[in-house]
Amino acid sequence: MATTRQLANPESDPRVKAVFDDIRATRKADFINNLWHALAFDPALLESTWAEVKRLMATPTQLDPLTKEMVYIAVSVANACSYCVHSHTAAAKGKGMTDAQHAELLAIIALAAKTNHLATGLQVGVDGVFDVGGAAEPRS
Amino acid sequence: MATTRQLANPESDPRVKAVFDDIRATRKADFINNLWHALAFDPALLESTWAEVKRLMATPTQLDPLTKEMVYIAVSVANACSYCVHSHTAAAKGKGMTDAQHAELLAIIALAAKTNHLATGLQVGVDGVFDVGGAAEPRS
Amino acid sequence: MATTRQLANPESDPRVKAVFDDIRATRKADFINNLWHALAFDPALLESTWAEVKRLMATPTQLDPLTKEMVYIAVSVANACSYCVHSHTAAAKGKGMTDAQHAELLAIIALAAKTNHLATGLQVGVDGVFDVGGAAEPRS
Amino acid sequence: MATTRQLANPESDPRVKAVFDDIRATRKADFINNLWHALAFDPALLESTWAEVKRLMATPTQLDPLTKEMVYIAVSVANACSYCVHSHTAAAKGKGMTDAQHAELLAIIALAAKTNHLATGLQVGVDGVFDVGGAAEPRS
Amino acid sequence: MATTRQLANPESDPRVKAVFDDIRATRKADFINNLWHALAFDPALLESTWAEVKRLMATPTQLDPLTKEMVYIAVSVANACSYCVHSHTAAAKGKGMTDAQHAELLAIIALAAKTNHLATGLQVGVDGVFDVGGAAEPRS
Amino acid sequence: MATTRQLANPESDPRVKAVFDDIRATRKADFINNLWHALAFDPALLESTWAEVKRLMATPTQLDPLTKEMVYIAVSVANACSYCVHSHTAAAKGKGMTDAQHAELLAIIALAAKTNHLATGLQVGVDGVFDVGGAAEPRS
Repeated sequence: MATTRQLANPESDPRVKAVFDDIRATRKADFINNLWHALAFDPALLESTWAEVKRLMATPTQLDPLTKEMVYIAVSVANACSYCVHSHTAAAKGKGMTDAQHAELLAIIALAAKTNHLATGLQVGVDGVFDVGGAAEPRS
Repeated sequence: MATTRQLANPESDPRVKAVFDDIRATRKADFINNLWHALAFDPALLESTWAEVKRLMATPTQLDPLTKEMVYIAVSVANACSYCVHSHTAAAKGKGMTDAQHAELLAIIALAAKTNHLATGLQVGVDGVFDVGGAAEPRS
Repeated sequence: MATTRQLANPESDPRVKAVFDDIRATRKADFINNLWHALAFDPALLESTWAEVKRLMATPTQLDPLTKEMVYIAVSVANACSYCVHSHTAAAKGKGMTDAQHAELLAIIALAAKTNHLATGLQVGVDGVFDVGGAAEPRS
Repeated sequence: MATTRQLANPESDPRVKAVFDDIRATRKADFINNLWHALAFDPALLESTWAEVKRLMATPTQLDPLTKEMVYIAVSVANACSYCVHSHTAAAKGKGMTDAQHAELLAIIALAAKTNHLATGLQVGVDGVFDVGGAAEPRS
Repeated sequence: MATTRQLANPESDPRVKAVFDDIRATRKADFINNLWHALAFDPALLESTWAEVKRLMATPTQLDPLTKEMVYIAVSVANACSYCVHSHTAAAKGKGMTDAQHAELLAIIALAAKTNHLATGLQVGVDGVFDVGGAAEPRS
Repeated sequence: MATTRQLANPESDPRVKAVFDDIRATRKADFINNLWHALAFDPALLESTWAEVKRLMATPTQLDPLTKEMVYIAVSVANACSYCVHSHTAAAKGKGMTDAQHAELLAIIALAAKTNHLATGLQVGVDGVFDVGGAAEPRS
C-alpha cells in the first residue's frame, strides 16, 4: 500500500542513487527502508528529508543517540504514525535499547498521554512560575 | 479558567492534604502547581494520578530523570497540551536541561512530526524487518 | 481572540437572527455562546452547523442527553479543543452531571488515552475475533 | 476489517440504493468505495454523510476542485486517517494532481506539522496583530 | 506485526499467569486478546495496566458499563488507535450496544470532531460563563 | 507566555539579525512575529526553520501562494496549533482570501475531520483501487 508509485529502479536517477548511497554509507548497511523508496518519486523531497534526518539523527549532537530515538518514538506514538513507531523502535533497539528501557519508555509515553488528557479535560490554567518568556526582558 | 471548582481550602480534606504533603516532601518545595489543585475536587483521582506520576517520574528507574522529562515533553507537544508543555519544560530545566539541549529536543520533535506526516501522507508499508512480533514464536 | 470579525449587530442579518432565535427557543435561554457569534460571519455555515447540532444534541434520540455530552467531551479532549471542552462540560453539568460522574469521565478518558498510546507503541495486531466486517457476507 | 457488518446486498434497502445511485451518477462511475458500503448499515447516517460530501466536494463552489481535495488530504494526514489519505489522494489524482504537485503538497503538510510542533513546544503567544475578532466591534 | 517479541509461552512467568487468570475470571471467558499478550514482555507494565483497566472498566462504578465503553471508543477514534477502536467496539457490542446506538455514537463522534475543528479554526474565545474554576474561591 | 526566554535585544547576535533582516526583506514589512523571536534563543534552529519556510512558502513554486496557506491552515487546525491557525489565517487574508473562501475552507476542514472520524470509527479497509504503490513495479 502506498499513495505514490514505487519505481522499478529508483537508482537509475542519479540524485536518488546519491541519497541511497549516502544512507548505506551512513548506516553501514545495504538495506534501504520503504520510506526512502516512497520518497524517491520526488528527488528534491528525498534529498531535503534525508539531509535533515542525517544531520539530527545520524550525526553526534548534544543528546545521545538512544535518547534521540526515544524522543522520536514518543512523538510518533502520539501522532499515531504506525510506520514511524516500527522504524524508530527498530532503530532504538539497534542503538542498545533493552526490553526494560522499552517498557519504561512506553510507560512514560502512556502516563504523559494520561495526564495530557486530564489537564486538557480540566482546562488547567498555566502557573505563573512556569512562564519564562513573559514580560521579563523587553524587546529592543 | 478551569472546568472544575477550585476549592478555597483543599487541604481541609485529609486525603488531599496527604497527597499535597507528599508532593511537597518528594519535590522538597512548598509549591503545589495548578494540576494538583484542579484534581483535588476528586481525592481518589488525585491519589491515583499522583501515585503514578511519583512512581515513574520522581523515583529512580531505568532511564535518567532528564531523559524522562524530555520524553514527557515530546508527547505533550504532539498532544497539544499547553499546560503539560509548560510544566514539564520547567521540570526539565530544573533537572539541568540547557538551552542547547532544549533547542535540540525541539528540533527532534519537529523533525519527527515532519516525517510522521510524510509517512502517513505516503502511506508507507512497514518493512518486514521491522516486525519483531510476527510469526516468530507461536503461543502456547 | 478570533480569526473572523465579530459583527457589531449580527442579527441585522435575518438568516443569523433566525438561527439565534432558534438557539434561544431550543435552549430556553437568552444566552448565545461565542461559537455561534463567530460562525455568524457566514450564515450558510452557521445554519448547517446549528441544524446538525440541534438534530443530534438537542432532540431526543437513542442515547440519553448526558451520555451524548460525555461522548462529546471525550472527543473534544482528545482533539485538544479548549473551547469545546469548556462549552460541553458546562452543558453536561446543565444536564445533571455530578462531580463524581465528571471525575469518572475524566478517569476513563485518561485511561483510554493511556492504552491508546500503549497499543500504538506496541503496534498490536487486531485480533481476528474483533473483525465483524471481514469476509462474512459477500457483496451483491 | 471493519467494526460494522458488511451487508451482502445493501441495495435491497431503497434508501441505500438511492444514495448509491446518486454516488454513481455524480461521479459518472460504477464503483462504490468501501466507506459508503460501511455506512450502509445505517441509512440515515449514509444519507446525511453523502449529502454533505456531495454539496461541498462534488458541486462547484468558491474553491476549485483540486484545492479542495488537497485541503482534505492535509486534514486527513494530520488526523492519521489511513483510509481517507488513500481515497482523497486517489481523488486528487483523478482531478489532475501531478506528481510534482503531490510532492509539494506533502512538503507543505510536513513543514506545517514541523512548525506546529515548534510553536506548541515554544508556547508562543499570539501576536496582537493576528487577532481580528477581539474588541473591534461590540455586539448589539 | 508488533514492536515487542511475542512469547511462545507467556504464562510460564507466574506474574503473567496471574494477570491472565484474572482477565479470564473477570471476563468469564478463555480468550486473552493481543494487547495483553503484547504487554506480557514486561510483567510490571502488564500488571499495572490491567489493574487500572479492571478497576475502571470491569467493576461497577458511577457510570454504566455501556456508557463507559462508548466514551472509550470516542477517545480511541479521536486518537486514531485502530486496535482500540476494534477491541472496544467489540466490548460495547458485548455489553448490548445495538446497531442504532452504534450509528448514533459514530454520528456524535463525527459531529464533535467537526465542531472541534471549526472552533479551533475560528479560535473562538471561551465564554466567561463556562469558567467555573476562575476567581471564585481563593486558595488557602 | 513562552517556554524560552525572550531576548531583550535578539539582533545583537549577527546570525539572528541576518535572519530577521531576510524576513523583513522577503515580506517587505518591518514586523517580525513572535515565532521568530521565540526561535531566536537558538540561532541554528532559527536559521534552518526560516530557510525551509522561505523556500516553500515565500518563493514561487508549483502551487499558488493562497492554496499553500490554506493547506497550512488545514494542518494547523487538525494539530490544534492555536498560534499557527492565527498566523496563517492572517497570512492567507494578506494573500487575498475572502470571507467566502475562508468559510468554505473551514467547512471543508470540518467535513474532513468528520469523515476522518467516521472512517476510523468504522475501521474501513482501503479499497484495492486506491493502492498505487503495491506490487506494481518490482524494485531493482
